[in-house]
Amino acid sequence: KEKGFKLYSSKDYFIDGTEGFCSGNLPENVELLLVLGGDGTFLSVAREYAGYQVPILGVNLGTLGFLTEVELKEVEDAIEKIDKGQYNIEKRQMVEAQLIRDGEIIEKVVALNEITISKGPLARIISLNTYVDDVFLECYPGDGVIISTPTGSTGYSLSAGGPILTPALPVLVITPICPHTLHSRSVVVSNKSEIKVILTTTNQEVVLTIDGQKGIGLKSGDVIKVKGSDLFVPVVRLKGKNFFDILRLKMNNYSNRRLL
Amino acid sequence: KEKGFKLYSSKDYFIDGTEGFCSGNLPENVELLLVLGGDGTFLSVAREYAGYQVPILGVNLGTLGFLTEVELKEVEDAIEKIDKGQYNIEKRQMVEAQLIRDGEIIEKVVALNEITISKGPLARIISLNTYVDDVFLECYPGDGVIISTPTGSTGYSLSAGGPILTPALPVLVITPICPHTLHSRSVVVSNKSEIKVILTTTNQEVVLTIDGQKGIGLKSGDVIKVKGSDLFVPVVRLKGKNFFDILRLKMNNYSNRRLL
Amino acid sequence: KEKGFKLYSSKDYFIDGTEGFCSGNLPENVELLLVLGGDGTFLSVAREYAGYQVPILGVNLGTLGFLTEVELKEVEDAIEKIDKGQYNIEKRQMVEAQLIRDGEIIEKVVALNEITISKGPLARIISLNTYVDDVFLECYPGDGVIISTPTGSTGYSLSAGGPILTPALPVLVITPICPHTLHSRSVVVSNKSEIKVILTTTNQEVVLTIDGQKGIGLKSGDVIKVKGSDLFVPVVRLKGKNFFDILRLKMNNYSNRRLL
Amino acid sequence: KEKGFKLYSSKDYFIDGTEGFCSGNLPENVELLLVLGGDGTFLSVAREYAGYQVPILGVNLGTLGFLTEVELKEVEDAIEKIDKGQYNIEKRQMVEAQLIRDGEIIEKVVALNEITISKGPLARIISLNTYVDDVFLECYPGDGVIISTPTGSTGYSLSAGGPILTPALPVLVITPICPHTLHSRSVVVSNKSEIKVILTTTNQEVVLTIDGQKGIGLKSGDVIKVKGSDLFVPVVRLKGKNFFDILRLKMNNYSNRRLL
Repeated sequence: KEKGFKLYSSKDYFIDGTEGFCSGNLPENVELLLVLGGDGTFLSVAREYAGYQVPILGVNLGTLGFLTEVELKEVEDAIEKIDKGQYNIEKRQMVEAQLIRDGEIIEKVVALNEITISKGPLARIISLNTYVDDVFLECYPGDGVIISTPTGSTGYSLSAGGPILTPALPVLVITPICPHTLHSRSVVVSNKSEIKVILTTTNQEVVLTIDGQKGIGLKSGDVIKVKGSDLFVPVVRLKGKNFFDILRLKMNNYSNRRLL
Repeated sequence: KEKGFKLYSSKDYFIDGTEGFCSGNLPENVELLLVLGGDGTFLSVAREYAGYQVPILGVNLGTLGFLTEVELKEVEDAIEKIDKGQYNIEKRQMVEAQLIRDGEIIEKVVALNEITISKGPLARIISLNTYVDDVFLECYPGDGVIISTPTGSTGYSLSAGGPILTPALPVLVITPICPHTLHSRSVVVSNKSEIKVILTTTNQEVVLTIDGQKGIGLKSGDVIKVKGSDLFVPVVRLKGKNFFDILRLKMNNYSNRRLL
Repeated sequence: KEKGFKLYSSKDYFIDGTEGFCSGNLPENVELLLVLGGDGTFLSVAREYAGYQVPILGVNLGTLGFLTEVELKEVEDAIEKIDKGQYNIEKRQMVEAQLIRDGEIIEKVVALNEITISKGPLARIISLNTYVDDVFLECYPGDGVIISTPTGSTGYSLSAGGPILTPALPVLVITPICPHTLHSRSVVVSNKSEIKVILTTTNQEVVLTIDGQKGIGLKSGDVIKVKGSDLFVPVVRLKGKNFFDILRLKMNNYSNRRLL
Repeated sequence: KEKGFKLYSSKDYFIDGTEGFCSGNLPENVELLLVLGGDGTFLSVAREYAGYQVPILGVNLGTLGFLTEVELKEVEDAIEKIDKGQYNIEKRQMVEAQLIRDGEIIEKVVALNEITISKGPLARIISLNTYVDDVFLECYPGDGVIISTPTGSTGYSLSAGGPILTPALPVLVITPICPHTLHSRSVVVSNKSEIKVILTTTNQEVVLTIDGQKGIGLKSGDVIKVKGSDLFVPVVRLKGKNFFDILRLKMNNYSNRRLL
């Protein structure tokens, strides 16, 4: 693989013949991030290195994904193409959230798929007073609410009944989880809008989850402010494969899995 | 209230001028259980004393419920009517579950609303291989699955997208929670059918929940067998109020609450 | 095929070497009806000859169906098995409707899948005041309402968001079509219940449809009474194929069709 | 009402003391269109005069609407405010469609709410091969498909299961009607995208409908190309009333209506 490239690898997964770096501290001259894994791995790397704005190439080790672009055996070819400039960068919108407790910001997070506020299995119905640009939208009594990017619209939001959003749209979608107000529906808003969620329920286990991977416990009275981030993940695209093609294939995969 | 009736009260909530009894141990000559609270309290009392088959009168202390029959101020009138025989008993189907681990039954539970098998907020998608009378139905990848009685069909199952079942039907309904196989739908089966759920996912927090009130942690490989119970809860009905009337009122309540 | 059997064929589709009969008038000694076609053909034959209570064997000429049992090449084998008594009869509930205009019954119909009351593409939202056993249920403003048997639950009702009902349940399901009251859900009721629908909208094209195959124009003020019929269709079952197996295969077929 | 304004009225609804004009031919110096009626009237006026780009004030004669801004008794006040410049213009995206038969464009239409392609009550399932920017999306077997603007997202698309879109988003939403592919979901695309629908079903009654008000019969092989129009309807806004407030009120109205 060495044709004049300098290789680095995260010290967490050190690879022989490469120069290591500490997780989260990308060396300055890195021009391409290779992520080996599935969409889940891609999500966590995207969050960690989003600030660097280095293009990411997803190398698929598992089942077909929306974010991974090539299979392991295609990596060398891929890097050659990238070296020759035969690729596109698709900028994927991230979403950011502030957790405010007693008037103070105590956490700031970004996600590529979605920010979820949801209850534990034994918690009672929670109420989440939700505002868009300070206008009251809904109190969403139920299991919780998902605020998803277009990238995340094919994930948890879809399972909860949300629409599919094509990747480049400047929007976010608010999708309730098992709402008790039966007329609750997904609401699509601008990525410039500020979505404010206030947890009014007391004494229940409620968690803010980032891309389904990291969780922060919430308390009654907590305010969560969510909006489109200024950060976009630069995803390397090499092939002619289209969003709708992958969508169709994935939906089909789900179906086939049912027969096993 | 003493017109020749002997009054008892559970020692947990001892009331002056009554004879106490230990929670779960109903004195033999009790002919009517008064439950003061909402539908949630009714559910827990119904489960605890189901074996006694004593009629239960729900006295509503909160918002309108499906199971509570009278308001607090109407209790004396209600008891007079019951004494005169001016009432009906509505028999509500319960559901029972066995939890089998390593081939042994380690728990037996009954529920009036539903048995839920679901994941914690940070757990990944879980797979629940589900069989009806030993025929494979679906693997339900997603947040979990609800097996609900007709009584429970207006509760969690409804929030998760399930149909409304009139109370006396001899059926159970299986409703997936945020399923990843998008075509998954509620399936209504006979209350004689045995529904078998096998948890195949490893290393995730998964909980079996009884009426949303009690939880049991599950492990990979656990088998849960669910079917209609031989126990029916005898609910006292005094008024002409009909299931569909309550349904309409409750749905409306949900809507109004949204405006506050 | 002649091993002592006497063969008849409907004069509409007269087959050489058989004795003809007029459509709808089955000769008295017929013991088995062979239906060649898909589920659609099966439905129309089932309605036409339901009164005779003669077992029906569906011979599949098209795509996999829920009602057809064998492929064309398997017919001889099938008849031998039936002759030897190696078969089961599955009794499928029918649904019947009366159309009442100005106080008089002007039509009586039966269906095996469903009775639908729906509007034409250019009609405005229609209102259908719907009662179950004379208790008001819902006015269902929208495109219409489907009243389906368990057999029909995998057809139009499913597309409109209804649950799947296993074939033998003594129930009917009421499913709204594109309802404007967003909280409307499918309601499952006893097959003994009388569902009454009153068309209150004026001057719009509204049609009562039987199994999606026959239509009757409706007028404002028309009353439609629907309930489980005393007629059950006796369907011949030879194989071990199970309802859930067919369901899974069909769902999968739908998915695959999308890739073409 | 004459404070120096010159009044006109469409000859179809000629009002005394005004100067008439032929429907569709707005006099040149008209600076404000008053529409008296409900959202339905607003839609038809918006389509007819969209080319003039004259601001429209909706005067509500019926139930609360999303497009009408004032009640009849508030009209004079409203006009004074507008005269003083105390108003906003909200530009609502329209959608346009071309109907292509045998390679020729035979119709061009615009809609403010939605373009619908759907079947008659007695037609069988229709198949609509749907492409976004020439990439195949879905064949949508079922009752049809809705292509809706953000304005239309609270109308028919919502009834069919679609999401709510805030009015200013640069998107369109594709929502299937009673789809047989159960995994079909609403898809939100850019208003710059071209959505192409090909009717492949033969011999069935299929209609293209504009805002649910005008219909054009379709034939097998017809191609319908839909995209965001360059025309935006300039809607006069006077009050602080917000989209989400109206949404909440309307949802609530629907609920209350159920109790009558």
